[in-house]
Amino acid sequence: MSSANRQWRVARYPQIDEPISTALFDWVETGIPTPGDGEFVVRSICLGTGPAQRGYLSPGRGEFLSLVPLGQVMRGRGVGQIVSSRHPDYPAGRIFVGSLGWQDYSVQQPRGKQFVFSTKLVAEPIRPLSLELGILGQAGVTAYFGLIEVGRMKPGDRVLVSAAAGGVGSVVGQIARIQGAETVVGVAGTDEKCRWLTRTLGLSAAVNYRRDDLDARLAELFPNGIDLFFDNVGGATLDTALLHLAERARVVICGFISSDYRRDPGPGPINYRKLVSRRARMEGFVVFDYWERFAEAEAALRDWYAQGLLHSCEDIDEGLENMPASLASLFSGTNRGVKLCRVAPDPAPGPG
Amino acid sequence: MSSANRQWRVARYPQIDEPISTALFDWVETGIPTPGDGEFVVRSICLGTGPAQRGYLSPGRGEFLSLVPLGQVMRGRGVGQIVSSRHPDYPAGRIFVGSLGWQDYSVQQPRGKQFVFSTKLVAEPIRPLSLELGILGQAGVTAYFGLIEVGRMKPGDRVLVSAAAGGVGSVVGQIARIQGAETVVGVAGTDEKCRWLTRTLGLSAAVNYRRDDLDARLAELFPNGIDLFFDNVGGATLDTALLHLAERARVVICGFISSDYRRDPGPGPINYRKLVSRRARMEGFVVFDYWERFAEAEAALRDWYAQGLLHSCEDIDEGLENMPASLASLFSGTNRGVKLCRVAPDPAPGPG
Repeated sequence: MSSANRQWRVARYPQIDEPISTALFDWVETGIPTPGDGEFVVRSICLGTGPAQRGYLSPGRGEFLSLVPLGQVMRGRGVGQIVSSRHPDYPAGRIFVGSLGWQDYSVQQPRGKQFVFSTKLVAEPIRPLSLELGILGQAGVTAYFGLIEVGRMKPGDRVLVSAAAGGVGSVVGQIARIQGAETVVGVAGTDEKCRWLTRTLGLSAAVNYRRDDLDARLAELFPNGIDLFFDNVGGATLDTALLHLAERARVVICGFISSDYRRDPGPGPINYRKLVSRRARMEGFVVFDYWERFAEAEAALRDWYAQGLLHSCEDIDEGLENMPASLASLFSGTNRGVKLCRVAPDPAPGPG
Repeated sequence: MSSANRQWRVARYPQIDEPISTALFDWVETGIPTPGDGEFVVRSICLGTGPAQRGYLSPGRGEFLSLVPLGQVMRGRGVGQIVSSRHPDYPAGRIFVGSLGWQDYSVQQPRGKQFVFSTKLVAEPIRPLSLELGILGQAGVTAYFGLIEVGRMKPGDRVLVSAAAGGVGSVVGQIARIQGAETVVGVAGTDEKCRWLTRTLGLSAAVNYRRDDLDARLAELFPNGIDLFFDNVGGATLDTALLHLAERARVVICGFISSDYRRDPGPGPINYRKLVSRRARMEGFVVFDYWERFAEAEAALRDWYAQGLLHSCEDIDEGLENMPASLASLFSGTNRGVKLCRVAPDPAPGPG
């Protein structure tokens, strides 16, 4: 166990086209905190990453991506263990998921802080605990509500997912398969990712957008059109996919990492015009809106995992020191699955 | 009554950026047709225009805009009177709405031809009969289903409509007012149209996109955002409006006349990305899908007209010879309301 609390604090915000790197943060070692009345201290085990974290570093982004003040610990979700507590409902030893920040130890309250969504004690932790940040956690819940609620997925649908080897995408493709899609095709950026999508995650096919002719491949793979497109990418991928929509298609906009945080986001999707002749719909969503139904999604995800239907797809770096590089990987596309850093080993199973 | 059947036949298809003009058509005078068994002949009274007609002249457009073969009479809807009949259910004297084509006389069957949608006898004709092609006809029905079904308009909604002085737009704005919108703002291209929208059609406000700063005006007029945007235009108007969406906003895509039939359609709407943070939806539709419910819309429109709530907004040219110019006006934006040509005077009211 670390004898100090190591932290990444925000030193400055990135320029608009600047990659995420350690240059944006200060590495600080400080004392291990103690809980005040009604508080408890959580030791970080794994910390997660997500594209929204770049929004926390982007002034003027506003909306639901509130800025982390300079000098503060970088915000981020994690799974950890309560190591000291002055709150009767959150005793030491329990496993906790919430906004731990990029640090070894965080002081928590049950509510009252930013991003309390899905802050929770884990009732029956599944090992490895990293699953709580991946397929059983926010990536899984985002995929679940995006696909099933926003996309209204039905058995027999022909489904396309972009950034299919990304954190959310790798769960979307699997849920579509489990829910009885006729076809699930993933778009990814390397042949190795494409093999992983079909061989390990069980997708019907995968397209390497960097090498293949996406338009031609979609015409082959969707001769009757795409019923549901779950898009994490935007840009040319979205614009091309719109040409292949079936009638009454649903396009779920989860993100747009190809154009986000860029000085020049490039042109928008002119093929939105296909929405008319295809009677199709394009809809965005924010997973926190489903907060009151997270337990439903988490139960389904755990059940699928227990049955061996849902494969683990966490991509784990070792060490708190690698958090900036782990976050950067989401924007360079070098992650495969849900990118995490392990900060401490899983504790031995205890009373839970 | 004309002693011949005058026709506009398609001579050639326009180049992609070529305006609609008489150069595309041959003016032909031929004999008045006689009905075969089960057929009837309709004399045209008013003929309508719509942007889809350019699609009928555009090879490769496909989808539901099938090409008119060269040498054939130009396709188009109209209202007319049955002048001779060999079908017991369609007796001479009755008023008929259907695909009459750009000609004085057409041979009709009850079914079996292209675009039978809303081909019908008019049970209780309202004068002038041009209303059957305007607010009581396809423009009205398109506005009705687009706003109420696709857009799910609710009382209290803050509504924006583009091409608000156009054929469909001028009905959309009025229905939104009648249905209890808190605000209805129209976008149009001249000050004169803007005055017409507010003074005659009763919209809350109008913006001249050619002169005003649309972004600044929308910020003023929609301080709490747009709940429902009915878009006929696309391009910069759509992209700017997306910046002003309220949460859970609905964007109804009816058309995109700013970019349609252009060699260079310009960039797509990069602000589609707002669909995520606003949890908003963009959806296209084709009015023919509502064919089985047209009677419901027509009844509502007639009722509103009878109550004086819905103002007539037909923009009528005189003479069959002006059909090419009337159609061209839709693309130059010089029409105000539903553009029609009167081909013959309304007949005296008869047995109906």
